[in-house]
Amino acid sequence: MEFEESGIGEECGVFGCVSAGEWPTQLEVAQILTLGLVALQHRGQESAGIVTSTGTNPPIYTTLKGMGLVNTAFKAEDLLKLRNGNLGIGHTRYSTTGISELQNCQPFVVDTLHGKIAVAHNGELVNASALRKKVMRHGVGLSTSSDSELITQLLALTPPMEELDTPDWVARIKNLMTETPTSYSLLVVYKDVIYAVRDPYGNRPLSIGRLVPISKLHSSGAGEADTEGWVVSSESCSFQSIGAKYYREVQPGEIVQISKNGVKSLSVVPRPEGDPPAFCIFEYVYFARPDSIFEGQMVYTVRQRCGRQLAIEAPTDADVVSTVPESATPAALGYAQQSGLPYVEVLCKNRYVGRTFIQPNTRLRQLGVAKKFGALTDNFAGKRVVLIDDSIVRGNTISPIIKLLKEAGATEVHIRVASPPIRFPCYMGINIPTKEELIANRPEFEDIAGYIGATSVRYLSVEGLVSAVQGGIESRGKDERISTKTARIGHCTACLTGKYPVELEW
Amino acid sequence: MEFEESGIGEECGVFGCVSAGEWPTQLEVAQILTLGLVALQHRGQESAGIVTSTGTNPPIYTTLKGMGLVNTAFKAEDLLKLRNGNLGIGHTRYSTTGISELQNCQPFVVDTLHGKIAVAHNGELVNASALRKKVMRHGVGLSTSSDSELITQLLALTPPMEELDTPDWVARIKNLMTETPTSYSLLVVYKDVIYAVRDPYGNRPLSIGRLVPISKLHSSGAGEADTEGWVVSSESCSFQSIGAKYYREVQPGEIVQISKNGVKSLSVVPRPEGDPPAFCIFEYVYFARPDSIFEGQMVYTVRQRCGRQLAIEAPTDADVVSTVPESATPAALGYAQQSGLPYVEVLCKNRYVGRTFIQPNTRLRQLGVAKKFGALTDNFAGKRVVLIDDSIVRGNTISPIIKLLKEAGATEVHIRVASPPIRFPCYMGINIPTKEELIANRPEFEDIAGYIGATSVRYLSVEGLVSAVQGGIESRGKDERISTKTARIGHCTACLTGKYPVELEW
Amino acid sequence: MEFEESGIGEECGVFGCVSAGEWPTQLEVAQILTLGLVALQHRGQESAGIVTSTGTNPPIYTTLKGMGLVNTAFKAEDLLKLRNGNLGIGHTRYSTTGISELQNCQPFVVDTLHGKIAVAHNGELVNASALRKKVMRHGVGLSTSSDSELITQLLALTPPMEELDTPDWVARIKNLMTETPTSYSLLVVYKDVIYAVRDPYGNRPLSIGRLVPISKLHSSGAGEADTEGWVVSSESCSFQSIGAKYYREVQPGEIVQISKNGVKSLSVVPRPEGDPPAFCIFEYVYFARPDSIFEGQMVYTVRQRCGRQLAIEAPTDADVVSTVPESATPAALGYAQQSGLPYVEVLCKNRYVGRTFIQPNTRLRQLGVAKKFGALTDNFAGKRVVLIDDSIVRGNTISPIIKLLKEAGATEVHIRVASPPIRFPCYMGINIPTKEELIANRPEFEDIAGYIGATSVRYLSVEGLVSAVQGGIESRGKDERISTKTARIGHCTACLTGKYPVELEW
Amino acid sequence: MEFEESGIGEECGVFGCVSAGEWPTQLEVAQILTLGLVALQHRGQESAGIVTSTGTNPPIYTTLKGMGLVNTAFKAEDLLKLRNGNLGIGHTRYSTTGISELQNCQPFVVDTLHGKIAVAHNGELVNASALRKKVMRHGVGLSTSSDSELITQLLALTPPMEELDTPDWVARIKNLMTETPTSYSLLVVYKDVIYAVRDPYGNRPLSIGRLVPISKLHSSGAGEADTEGWVVSSESCSFQSIGAKYYREVQPGEIVQISKNGVKSLSVVPRPEGDPPAFCIFEYVYFARPDSIFEGQMVYTVRQRCGRQLAIEAPTDADVVSTVPESATPAALGYAQQSGLPYVEVLCKNRYVGRTFIQPNTRLRQLGVAKKFGALTDNFAGKRVVLIDDSIVRGNTISPIIKLLKEAGATEVHIRVASPPIRFPCYMGINIPTKEELIANRPEFEDIAGYIGATSVRYLSVEGLVSAVQGGIESRGKDERISTKTARIGHCTACLTGKYPVELEW
Repeated sequence: MEFEESGIGEECGVFGCVSAGEWPTQLEVAQILTLGLVALQHRGQESAGIVTSTGTNPPIYTTLKGMGLVNTAFKAEDLLKLRNGNLGIGHTRYSTTGISELQNCQPFVVDTLHGKIAVAHNGELVNASALRKKVMRHGVGLSTSSDSELITQLLALTPPMEELDTPDWVARIKNLMTETPTSYSLLVVYKDVIYAVRDPYGNRPLSIGRLVPISKLHSSGAGEADTEGWVVSSESCSFQSIGAKYYREVQPGEIVQISKNGVKSLSVVPRPEGDPPAFCIFEYVYFARPDSIFEGQMVYTVRQRCGRQLAIEAPTDADVVSTVPESATPAALGYAQQSGLPYVEVLCKNRYVGRTFIQPNTRLRQLGVAKKFGALTDNFAGKRVVLIDDSIVRGNTISPIIKLLKEAGATEVHIRVASPPIRFPCYMGINIPTKEELIANRPEFEDIAGYIGATSVRYLSVEGLVSAVQGGIESRGKDERISTKTARIGHCTACLTGKYPVELEW
Repeated sequence: MEFEESGIGEECGVFGCVSAGEWPTQLEVAQILTLGLVALQHRGQESAGIVTSTGTNPPIYTTLKGMGLVNTAFKAEDLLKLRNGNLGIGHTRYSTTGISELQNCQPFVVDTLHGKIAVAHNGELVNASALRKKVMRHGVGLSTSSDSELITQLLALTPPMEELDTPDWVARIKNLMTETPTSYSLLVVYKDVIYAVRDPYGNRPLSIGRLVPISKLHSSGAGEADTEGWVVSSESCSFQSIGAKYYREVQPGEIVQISKNGVKSLSVVPRPEGDPPAFCIFEYVYFARPDSIFEGQMVYTVRQRCGRQLAIEAPTDADVVSTVPESATPAALGYAQQSGLPYVEVLCKNRYVGRTFIQPNTRLRQLGVAKKFGALTDNFAGKRVVLIDDSIVRGNTISPIIKLLKEAGATEVHIRVASPPIRFPCYMGINIPTKEELIANRPEFEDIAGYIGATSVRYLSVEGLVSAVQGGIESRGKDERISTKTARIGHCTACLTGKYPVELEW
Repeated sequence: MEFEESGIGEECGVFGCVSAGEWPTQLEVAQILTLGLVALQHRGQESAGIVTSTGTNPPIYTTLKGMGLVNTAFKAEDLLKLRNGNLGIGHTRYSTTGISELQNCQPFVVDTLHGKIAVAHNGELVNASALRKKVMRHGVGLSTSSDSELITQLLALTPPMEELDTPDWVARIKNLMTETPTSYSLLVVYKDVIYAVRDPYGNRPLSIGRLVPISKLHSSGAGEADTEGWVVSSESCSFQSIGAKYYREVQPGEIVQISKNGVKSLSVVPRPEGDPPAFCIFEYVYFARPDSIFEGQMVYTVRQRCGRQLAIEAPTDADVVSTVPESATPAALGYAQQSGLPYVEVLCKNRYVGRTFIQPNTRLRQLGVAKKFGALTDNFAGKRVVLIDDSIVRGNTISPIIKLLKEAGATEVHIRVASPPIRFPCYMGINIPTKEELIANRPEFEDIAGYIGATSVRYLSVEGLVSAVQGGIESRGKDERISTKTARIGHCTACLTGKYPVELEW
Repeated sequence: MEFEESGIGEECGVFGCVSAGEWPTQLEVAQILTLGLVALQHRGQESAGIVTSTGTNPPIYTTLKGMGLVNTAFKAEDLLKLRNGNLGIGHTRYSTTGISELQNCQPFVVDTLHGKIAVAHNGELVNASALRKKVMRHGVGLSTSSDSELITQLLALTPPMEELDTPDWVARIKNLMTETPTSYSLLVVYKDVIYAVRDPYGNRPLSIGRLVPISKLHSSGAGEADTEGWVVSSESCSFQSIGAKYYREVQPGEIVQISKNGVKSLSVVPRPEGDPPAFCIFEYVYFARPDSIFEGQMVYTVRQRCGRQLAIEAPTDADVVSTVPESATPAALGYAQQSGLPYVEVLCKNRYVGRTFIQPNTRLRQLGVAKKFGALTDNFAGKRVVLIDDSIVRGNTISPIIKLLKEAGATEVHIRVASPPIRFPCYMGINIPTKEELIANRPEFEDIAGYIGATSVRYLSVEGLVSAVQGGIESRGKDERISTKTARIGHCTACLTGKYPVELEW
């Protein structure tokens, strides 16, 4: 909903689980996958899918897919079909293409000469078009428009299938990684193994967690011997929901094998020399849940630092600081802390306003965002308000909020945006409006304050954002596995700067 | 969801709309009713219903009812059925009885000798059982267990129906009010009129709003001439959603007639001499949306005052103040302001965890509330936390949150509750657990801190709550219609004190 | 479907079941009710409902209602709710009013001073309007437009309710029967008893069956001792479906009490002196399932006799006799037997053509009935066909069939209708088009053959129909309980003759 | 339902439509496809799908799929999505594998180097397993278990795709036909053309029809100039439903191109020398709708001839002949005509008994088929009955019917089966129980009459069946396009004789 209105959207979330030993009755694997997907729901609300494997030889794969939120896409009785899986992967999808059909729903499962593989993908292959052509030239028909099917066919295709007893899937995955540099965080199931793969630029996130007994979840004493299974997820926020401890991130270019025998790093495919990693900086700014951890730091804390930095870069002579709930709240609190201005709430959000079925008439269209927010007048009437937002995309959401505040009595409304203006399209998995739709590219941007009705508007600088993000990495480093080499700092700021991490024409 | 977990729940919300003049195409009345109900959704999520009347002579009534949230209970094509109504009422219901069936869904419509009337009711008749018996002794069969049907039959029954051209519904309503003292906020539709009725004790809220052109919504210059219609609602928070200005409250005991010709106070049925009004104090503490206005004051502000008062009554030696999101936030901010301690967020809520279909196994049950909240560790690790909650009912929700915070690094967790302990049942429309289930009545309450795992636990006093609520009324009084007489201050604190506003046995 | 097209429709079917002794686990009562309703599905497809009672003191009633066919109206999990009933009644409804809403769905249950009663009704009260007024004048509001609610309120109303331990429901039922002469076949549940009631004119059918062990179902040796329970149904065709033996009909005016202790005739309310019974003759002609038994004779056999009589009254010089499948087949076979002409099939029906969702365009509308029937050309090309239909209502269904046959090669198509022309409305439970819509009342009827494109058209005479129906009653009489008095022969032919069994104005 | 009980089932039905000229607004193509599928519903009830193409360059394909009957699989609003198609194909599916999932639903659409193709398939590739292996060895992953996807990939694969402007799809189809001999009737859509293909053995049916103005539908004068479009269907019974005239069959091995420019035979791929055609004889016996035409003769007439032949081979000393409704009726009437015995109906079918949701308990299981049929006792009590059935598969359906008739008074029940015993599995698209389940392969078959409780049992001989089928072809030949060569008579009787038309091991 918010995503839609703001006009930017994450494409997908992936989640996998392997049961170690005998413990989780297999139904629990399906339950863990489901809860894991619910925790990633903010990354995609259009459809959801789960594939489980029995891990036996031959394995039995079971697939469940549905449109909508996880809780509506699957029914309780459907989950029982997954009962006999003791490993599996799931996917939650937000379509960038606008084609929302069940057949595009992931994971994608294909039967190959060596048995079935299942693939779940978060990201967008920058050279998908060329790869589709390559696959089709080979005589393969593609039944969907999803990158996920393309990846399965590429995995099946090269090198030529031979009737070996043990197919070298790792070699096939490495080969795929040489054919497409970014962006993908992949989960591939084959029999009793999940391969967790992150592209060499590390553009999309992927973290590993360890299932432990609930009783030992929060104690520091849960040792290796207590491991009950492994999970892998786009974001670590899902770990707590299912009783897992954060273990580590999959590193850029890394292929990790996850099985009942544990987690094993198989290979790290390098970037072209000189290329820094390019983790999407907007995961910090907007997409990720605030309790997720990337590169050793909590997203909430990064957002709070952005707010502090914004207060340094764009101080305001005002009475109160507030937030556009809920995503801008950490930045607003950071701004308040740094500036010393009191933090108050000025808007009350109606949780139940959703995708309403009512055909908008003129009156309702004019009302706009007022349907969604109530003004907490007492907190700001007669006062000068600094309102923090996390980003301004098209400029059509913030405008009625400002109007609402002013008409309810705010004497001034200063907008402070905790990220720089978005000016460029993303080809790596984020749904951003066309260049023309972005307010920062339009003539109105010259007088953005006038356009949206604010007293003043200031954005965080690119340098400020980068320093807020990267400043924390050095000072933290809780994840001892971030070696100096792989941790080389670098983030994708393409939507802000137009500097893409790879050549776009292939 | 939260309501369910906390174990207390509002029964219902009512909403009505009359179009003045020709303006709102009739479809808009149905839309306004729908949006109005969505804004009252927090008062009942089990079922929803709408009845519209054409207001013609004879009128055509159209009814729409469905289970679940407003957005799922009705479909777009169903709304079209209501198209020809230019006035109507709606209802959203949370069952106190556990019997959740479509037939108990309101509004209730009956055909009488003088035509159809429709009734929507928020509240619970304290003497329902005696009234049911009376009606049945008269030879009437009752097809549901709802008070709403009972009210329609009582209205039809007494005084004896005669074949008059103009039946005296107002006399019938007055008669009803003498038969049952509380609790009810009623909307009654007859032909082209809505009667809005509040019981003599004013136990349940009811406010009137004025529809104005959206363009004049926030300007002070929207005069009487701009009136496009009238709305009446359990809470004023719904007015902004549909483009209405707050007009006034229906006073305790008042019968207001709302028609295209405007709002007219017909009568005020008095309380027994000496009885103060008894507006439910828990509307302030918990039920109402923070942007609603009761007795001239904003609920958010009252909650903030409760937090301040709590800081005075129960100061804490700690490092940070925080909230159990989202309902306790105003109180937490008030506590922080008063105490001077910094306000931080410690919990991140997963918006998508809802009524999940997953059968809980041992593991998932042990996880409990962890599925719903993520810990924002950076904000409190190594610190002493004051956690503000709005109320503690059974004590089973706060306990795992404390555990979560402690295990994530909080050195101390002090619970401060912004309302007094709930000890007594409510017979006036609030769903409260049995006396035995209320933690305040159990032996564990002796050592409540130990029981829930907190470092310390303190509650707001009854006196503190009442002063926080009533202190504001005197200083405000924006609603000029609150005359000295009807505004006599008084609130129902029965669930906290056991002092019920009326004799319970009839 | 067919009903709808033909324009005449039965209103309802009722079914009841009481378990005798311990045998049928209670779930089986719900199952028997469901299967019984499925067997009565031809009497109403709009909605279905079941109410069960535990038969304990106090009893627990459980209600299940839904729109559509029985198999879609209820879900398997819903049936479990009825599990603890060991008696109950069900209803399947076809609305005459066009208002198809769940709230009009029967059975209707109301709570009275003496506890709950449930009522299922087949028929239409000729004086409903006056009775509604009477009830409403008493101060009762009516929440539906159904006769069933009206009956429950009448039962509750008169004589005045008193707080007796044992209310005299039988007296109340008798009183009801004096207030309304026809038409109703009623099932009333109170605690552990079903009262089965048929109006004094016996206008609607009602039969009793005896549940026996399946193993003894078809043997003549199943004695009283083998009784496992009792069923009561609009038509005996349902008995075989659930393993019951035909026992007897409820007689006109009779009140029968059915309980675990057996079947007991409580009273027979007489007709005004001189009035013959008036069982609806169209039950024989059209509505009833051919394997049902009325007045001791099988419906199929009566229809066959109608066909024979038609062959006598309206012989044809032709080559083959055929039927409009499926309802006219017994008459067609009777006509063939009597006339000596060979019987062939000329039309093949597509079972899957139902209420299709396709918006008819000109092309599809022109196709009409061709979507539903295929021509079995080989059987009639080059031949003169006698086509038997059971009735012609509007004349718009038979016309395209004749066209289809002629164009596929029939040299002549003679229509022979196994019932007289319908000319008058029914006020006793049958849905018949308005007088103006009935083809027999229109100017086109002068040259009906020309109008529908037939070579010739002939109808069965009223006398012929009556003799075909009544001729069999005398020669049969398997039901020894049909005493000379109650069995006095008489049938309602109002829709054919305009002679209604009772005065219509009250 | 019946199919399921009898244990044999057709796999699929295919239907295509091309609009000629401007006439059919494109929505009508979707409507024609839908109605065409409804008319083929008896060939598959598990799922349905439609693909339309705009026929423009490039074309836009739109796909609609759903589980269940056509009328429930699609919704009216979904059909609008197909609005812009002016040609398309549809498919209705009955799964042989028991895996009933939306992803196996046809038509199957894939994107290739030359654009999208859509394939609908009726039949079963005898060498599917080898072909799957071949495709996968080439590096293609297969995402479903359906032959339809396999066919699309084979078409894409060989010969190697080249970037030509005009790909030679006909050569690819011919190549496919050399790789797999049977069984398939295929519809392939590419841009603005439908290729209609029948395997060289002609195992599955496929007929072409011509859309004409409804007003000229039945007149012989509708010339070429009146053509409004073309349809192609598994069975000609669908033509009448949508206003099309029977044109001709696609011949065994023929590839026909259907476009707005008309119907063009492109090629006839021959069988190995000496091999006769092998049209499935069970299409005549059981599967097809009686008003369909195969090889110039109406199915109904063939079944009637089977009944006559059966009367010659297996005469009976009895009083009446009857049918197990409805499929055996033509044979029963044939038997009656030949034998001179009177034809009567003995069973009345409850149309509403479907896949009921009721969990069978002992009582209901014992009832069995009695739930479905009512006995028309008057027609056979005290008589010797010859009961004609079309086939006996497992023997468990006929047995309770015999019991029912006997207990209701039949003195003898002689079963005459209008086809020979089924003894062998089908590998060409028919779902037949395992050899062990077939009653004809079991020890009980020795005394089949005793086993099923009949007075006597006789089957039609294989020779009798073949002569009844083939006797008519010579005497008819209405389809002038059946040249002597292609019309060489030959039918697949493998399930009766074990003589398969092709070698089964590849």
